[in-house]
Amino acid sequence: MPRPPLPPELDAFLAKPNSAVIGTLRPDGSPVTVATWYDWEDGRVLVNMDNSRRRLAHMRADPRVSLTVLSLANWGSHVSLRGRVASFVDDVDLRDIDRLARRYGLDDYPLREDARTSAWIEVEHWHAWHPENL
Amino acid sequence: MPRPPLPPELDAFLAKPNSAVIGTLRPDGSPVTVATWYDWEDGRVLVNMDNSRRRLAHMRADPRVSLTVLSLANWGSHVSLRGRVASFVDDVDLRDIDRLARRYGLDDYPLREDARTSAWIEVEHWHAWHPENL
Repeated sequence: MPRPPLPPELDAFLAKPNSAVIGTLRPDGSPVTVATWYDWEDGRVLVNMDNSRRRLAHMRADPRVSLTVLSLANWGSHVSLRGRVASFVDDVDLRDIDRLARRYGLDDYPLREDARTSAWIEVEHWHAWHPENL
Repeated sequence: MPRPPLPPELDAFLAKPNSAVIGTLRPDGSPVTVATWYDWEDGRVLVNMDNSRRRLAHMRADPRVSLTVLSLANWGSHVSLRGRVASFVDDVDLRDIDRLARRYGLDDYPLREDARTSAWIEVEHWHAWHPENL
């Protein structure tokens, strides 16, 4: 898999509010996948979790992650990114989850009671399948 | 995450040709995710790979996998399955990849030269997000 930076057309694709699935590791080393909102900024990936999510503890224990971003128009075309969480940040005033909710066409995030954490992922490798159809 | 069997409505959802992302493990234990065709039969998952795929060697070395199946109509609703590859089978005459290609609306699989392998995944845990919208 090539290393960053990504070519401009893939950068533009990742900037769209695509569907995505993140893979993380459980304490026993097994993989877990789940759909996720994400944002793309300066070659890094933002994801955000409720602090009660076990996935957050898993990522703190082993920050290696993989993200597959699908083109809903043609999901055989997709971009996969491998990397690791470089920083965990308290989502003060839920600014990051609101940013993600608005990016995906919603209003502010409706659940305001629970504390959340953002994770910024540094991309180490990437691969695109049929990027001509993205 | 609950254990199988899955409730009938999720069984029916998985039987459709949905988009899906599979997570596997590299030799260093890091996760890799990639979009994949799949089929669902008697509570097991069929996936199929060209024998040249490194993912196939990775799965033979560590058969633990995770599969997230997305509803394209509403990808916030999805089903994730965790389990392991119970058997690897030579795809004689490319019957399995043809089966997958036809399931996803294509004719027979166009690339006939390269040998392929099927993997049957036994599901150990599952979880559904917003199954009411699947």
